[in-house]
Amino acid sequence: MSIYDSLLQIPLFKGLSIESFNEIIEKYKFEFLSYDKGSVIIKAGEECNCFKFVISGSVRSEHINEKVKIKLYETISAPNDIISNYALGNNIYPVSVYAEDENTGILVVDKQDFLSIMQEHRVVMLNYLILLSRKGQIPFESYNKIATDNIRAKFALWVLYFTNYNSSDIMIKAKFRDLYLFFGAQRGAFNSVLEEMKGLGIIDFSVKDIHVLDRKLLMSYYREICDM
Amino acid sequence: MSIYDSLLQIPLFKGLSIESFNEIIEKYKFEFLSYDKGSVIIKAGEECNCFKFVISGSVRSEHINEKVKIKLYETISAPNDIISNYALGNNIYPVSVYAEDENTGILVVDKQDFLSIMQEHRVVMLNYLILLSRKGQIPFESYNKIATDNIRAKFALWVLYFTNYNSSDIMIKAKFRDLYLFFGAQRGAFNSVLEEMKGLGIIDFSVKDIHVLDRKLLMSYYREICDM
Repeated sequence: MSIYDSLLQIPLFKGLSIESFNEIIEKYKFEFLSYDKGSVIIKAGEECNCFKFVISGSVRSEHINEKVKIKLYETISAPNDIISNYALGNNIYPVSVYAEDENTGILVVDKQDFLSIMQEHRVVMLNYLILLSRKGQIPFESYNKIATDNIRAKFALWVLYFTNYNSSDIMIKAKFRDLYLFFGAQRGAFNSVLEEMKGLGIIDFSVKDIHVLDRKLLMSYYREICDM
Repeated sequence: MSIYDSLLQIPLFKGLSIESFNEIIEKYKFEFLSYDKGSVIIKAGEECNCFKFVISGSVRSEHINEKVKIKLYETISAPNDIISNYALGNNIYPVSVYAEDENTGILVVDKQDFLSIMQEHRVVMLNYLILLSRKGQIPFESYNKIATDNIRAKFALWVLYFTNYNSSDIMIKAKFRDLYLFFGAQRGAFNSVLEEMKGLGIIDFSVKDIHVLDRKLLMSYYREICDM
């Protein structure tokens, strides 16, 4: 896949014609950067002044919940946007992001330029509006579907909410007693849920971490629970 | 306040110059409707094809959580938007909305027209992007601030998340045993929290309902808890 094809497959640019896309790259500055494996692309707490996209290789996002000492990791592969829902409102990045491959390719577009692109290209504005709308609607809808004593649903929702729909290699690192507390569950009940999900091939786990093997499977599992 | 002034104070139109606003109303159809007290403006489950604004009087929003039999009511006063975050993504209204006054004035703008207005007037697009961004960011941020065994925080967050920042007369109708279950709390602990909040003048309650007396006070209370 050429870089050009890859750019047109970034979710926020989907639906753009080649003509429109050429118009955009002629008019606005698209900055292409290359990162070494492990180097910092975004630091949690930093102000967000631009839109960042991974266009080759992949990045690893690290979300640390300070209050309860739970760390959540996920891999976001090209082509994709990186936490684009923190550009406005509270524009402080809540997670850190690292390059996962040698020569990870990142596209940076200035925030004001991206706003202008949205004004000029309705499909880009719509893509972004839908992305933001869903981010706000999902927790609202979920609140109505689960009773707070349903550990399966709470755990699945938490993972799904904090990770991207097409991310992979999701890892949760925490002491298990912190997880019991966080999910308001008894040790035995929480372990049964993990064993059940392991049996279904959704997760694997050790004493130190939980590895989500298949996010799509987790999504189906969550939907089944909610329809019950 | 004239209707004209009222329109310019709708949060999504804030910052528009009078010239820009005149341009908009000349170009696009702004439909003004009047509703009798108690009549239906929005029915939960209906598709959202337009943006609706309350421009005189007030409306009452009714949110029914079918799963746990908890009803939540709030009053939204003019000038304001009505659940504008359900125009895109999942565009099915999650709540019902009724006129609360005689001759409640509602402005209706077609969704496609509103998208065009956003493309032409950056300030309107920014207002909407910020509104949507915050709807998605708040639950994410809150998740990090509260442990799930903190009943005060969970109850406050739930009310704040489901109601508008400038709404009034918020009422929760539910059997108390459904509330214990929903918030994963013991009866005694939950009642202590309600008594504490009553003592602080934030809520009042009877055996059938909880009345939020001051949403701003609830917000301060929530912030204090989270900073602990």
